[in-house]
Amino acid sequence: MTSTPRNTWHDWLAAEAAKREEAGLTRRLRPRAADDSTIDLAGNDYLGLSRDPEVRRAAADAALTWGGGAGASRLVTGTLDLHAQLESELADYLGQPSALVLSSGYAANLAVVTALADRSAHIISDAHIHASLVDAARLSRARLTVVPHSDVDAVRAALEASEGERTLVLAESVYSVLGDAAPLADLAELCATYDALLVVDEAHGLGVHGPGLVAQAGLAGHPHVAVTATLSKSLGSQGGAVLGPSALREHLVNRARPFIFDTALAPAPTAAAQAALRVLRSRPGLSDLVRDRVRALADALGVVAPDGAVLSIPMPSPQTAIAAQSAAFADGIRVGCFRPPSVPDGISRLRVTASAGIVAADWDRAVDVIVAVAKEHQ
Amino acid sequence: MTSTPRNTWHDWLAAEAAKREEAGLTRRLRPRAADDSTIDLAGNDYLGLSRDPEVRRAAADAALTWGGGAGASRLVTGTLDLHAQLESELADYLGQPSALVLSSGYAANLAVVTALADRSAHIISDAHIHASLVDAARLSRARLTVVPHSDVDAVRAALEASEGERTLVLAESVYSVLGDAAPLADLAELCATYDALLVVDEAHGLGVHGPGLVAQAGLAGHPHVAVTATLSKSLGSQGGAVLGPSALREHLVNRARPFIFDTALAPAPTAAAQAALRVLRSRPGLSDLVRDRVRALADALGVVAPDGAVLSIPMPSPQTAIAAQSAAFADGIRVGCFRPPSVPDGISRLRVTASAGIVAADWDRAVDVIVAVAKEHQ
Ligand SMILES: Cc1ncc(COP(=O)(O)O)c(C=O)c1O
Ligand SMILES: Cc1ncc(COP(=O)(O)O)c(C=O)c1O
Repeated sequence: MTSTPRNTWHDWLAAEAAKREEAGLTRRLRPRAADDSTIDLAGNDYLGLSRDPEVRRAAADAALTWGGGAGASRLVTGTLDLHAQLESELADYLGQPSALVLSSGYAANLAVVTALADRSAHIISDAHIHASLVDAARLSRARLTVVPHSDVDAVRAALEASEGERTLVLAESVYSVLGDAAPLADLAELCATYDALLVVDEAHGLGVHGPGLVAQAGLAGHPHVAVTATLSKSLGSQGGAVLGPSALREHLVNRARPFIFDTALAPAPTAAAQAALRVLRSRPGLSDLVRDRVRALADALGVVAPDGAVLSIPMPSPQTAIAAQSAAFADGIRVGCFRPPSVPDGISRLRVTASAGIVAADWDRAVDVIVAVAKEHQ
Repeated sequence: MTSTPRNTWHDWLAAEAAKREEAGLTRRLRPRAADDSTIDLAGNDYLGLSRDPEVRRAAADAALTWGGGAGASRLVTGTLDLHAQLESELADYLGQPSALVLSSGYAANLAVVTALADRSAHIISDAHIHASLVDAARLSRARLTVVPHSDVDAVRAALEASEGERTLVLAESVYSVLGDAAPLADLAELCATYDALLVVDEAHGLGVHGPGLVAQAGLAGHPHVAVTATLSKSLGSQGGAVLGPSALREHLVNRARPFIFDTALAPAPTAAAQAALRVLRSRPGLSDLVRDRVRALADALGVVAPDGAVLSIPMPSPQTAIAAQSAAFADGIRVGCFRPPSVPDGISRLRVTASAGIVAADWDRAVDVIVAVAKEHQ
């Protein structure tokens, strides 16, 4: 008999899988068909622009004109006129001096944080910050202070404790899980006073609030504020961007490893984001509609309306959250479900996205289903 | 008079920019027009598939059918039938049990390493490994041993020193800068003996060597070997993949933060990669052609032929490398230029990519130009 060689990796993967199964936390991917007829209140296509005819057409034309990929990283030969156009239009809309496009919002967050912060820097991060910013802070090796959610006094205390270090403060304009807005004006003022840089992730603010909450607060171009954004939510495409002073952009081009060592965003998603931005600028009513819808849904559920387009309904347990999600799905409505470890406070939630892209009759039906399902599973 | 508030960030960015300027190392982006007529020997579209008519058509159709973006992360509602198809076709071609598609090769490397390794793990990394794997190892917080390039004895010694820890060995099948192949069979055997997992990045092997060097060495499906790939080079699109046992895929779906917290790859690049893969399978001669070309170019230059499609020509200084690149460009040929800090050994290089996608007459002219330019600048 031959002996089977040990395989610790195999055993470890099996043990991890068993632990997940036991905790009821195994996640599985469920592919969606092109002709899927369920109403999607789970994604982040807040304005419905992913399926807008002009956006589709622009993406298709770019693929036909430019090809399937950009062919290289941005600094080699991967920078297309398309990227330059999108960057200037994004900067213009958000009121920023410059923009740099990357292949995802995740990459944009990694890029800006790791290019600015190293072991000699200090990062002050909100407790609810998105995983991509958590990973970015980790990768940077900067000293990290995590402050309680949206606690301006805690940020001030951390800034006080930051003498001598270059300091970044990380926030989201609208937080992804709870949908609440950050106290941006206070944070920017603190950053100016204490000579830090506020980095605001507009992933869930852009589009839902027109050019985003940084712009609406009059903070675009503020010397102590930079912005990151994703092209994958309200802009219905894929990709990310960093916006701020042109010295920041030049620094990222030269130093940000997730920018330098990554193939440029492909032509189709670049053009899709550009087309979506143009539609958004020509139809500012889209932003109003999505906010009206989320407020109406919150009213119907008797919960507080979020600042973003995502409404979060706390559930008694991960199991009831899953059951409620399945019940909605049986009625033709997709909603999201957040369970540990994807929630900052351990509370499982249904996650319902309002979208301006759903026709009115479908939206009304979806609201009825969600109200019924939520009541049933409390 | 009002006093200007301090802005350490502004001063720091300015000082960093001044240092770059002084060292002659400032990089600038040069957008390319759609009708650009230069011959591109700088990118990574090794088989010319980015511009293949079927690839363009597939990308355009996917954008028209599915929209500009996937609309959500993979676990929410972003998994499309397209992703599932591409994953099964990739796994089939590379001879692997399963594949998971991510939004970039950079994300694929971050995902597999950080989901497998944490503080309690040990990573043994080749000195020439790509920046994305360097960043992945850093982010994982695992104990890191960097071994000299392709030094099997050094890997063995590091494995000996690895008692008790889960251990990953990181390699590229074909290294990106020097274009040399890794001693894969030896590394896999060592990993089996010492119960470690070999992670091989096929970014520059896939397509240039058909299904890649792991498959060609008979190591696909080896219980101690996993593979990462990018869809952005030979497959002419954008995106990345991790391939290996299905237990690994399931683990990544559940635990890999760069997968879970990132919007799914957009429809157009997903379909482009799928179409490119089909073209490649139906025309294996493409892989032969690109290897023939790189060998012929190496002969003409009197240098050793690389194992990949990228030929690297050492230059006396960063300045001569830039001058040679400009001279080639003046003759209508784009070549790359690697300078510190993007080279593992500090030696500046011209970087010339062979591609099966260039028509024969253009290819012949490009070879003449490069030979002349290289001679002139030595
Ligand atoms: C707040 C926030 N930032 C960044 C990202 C990452 O953006 P992307 O999906 O474009 O990588 C997301 C979600 O995906 C997010 O919710
Ligand atoms: C060896 C290697 N791995 C990974 C990557 C990253 O892949 P992507 O550009 O798809 O992010 C690259 C280059 O870009 C590479 O050369």
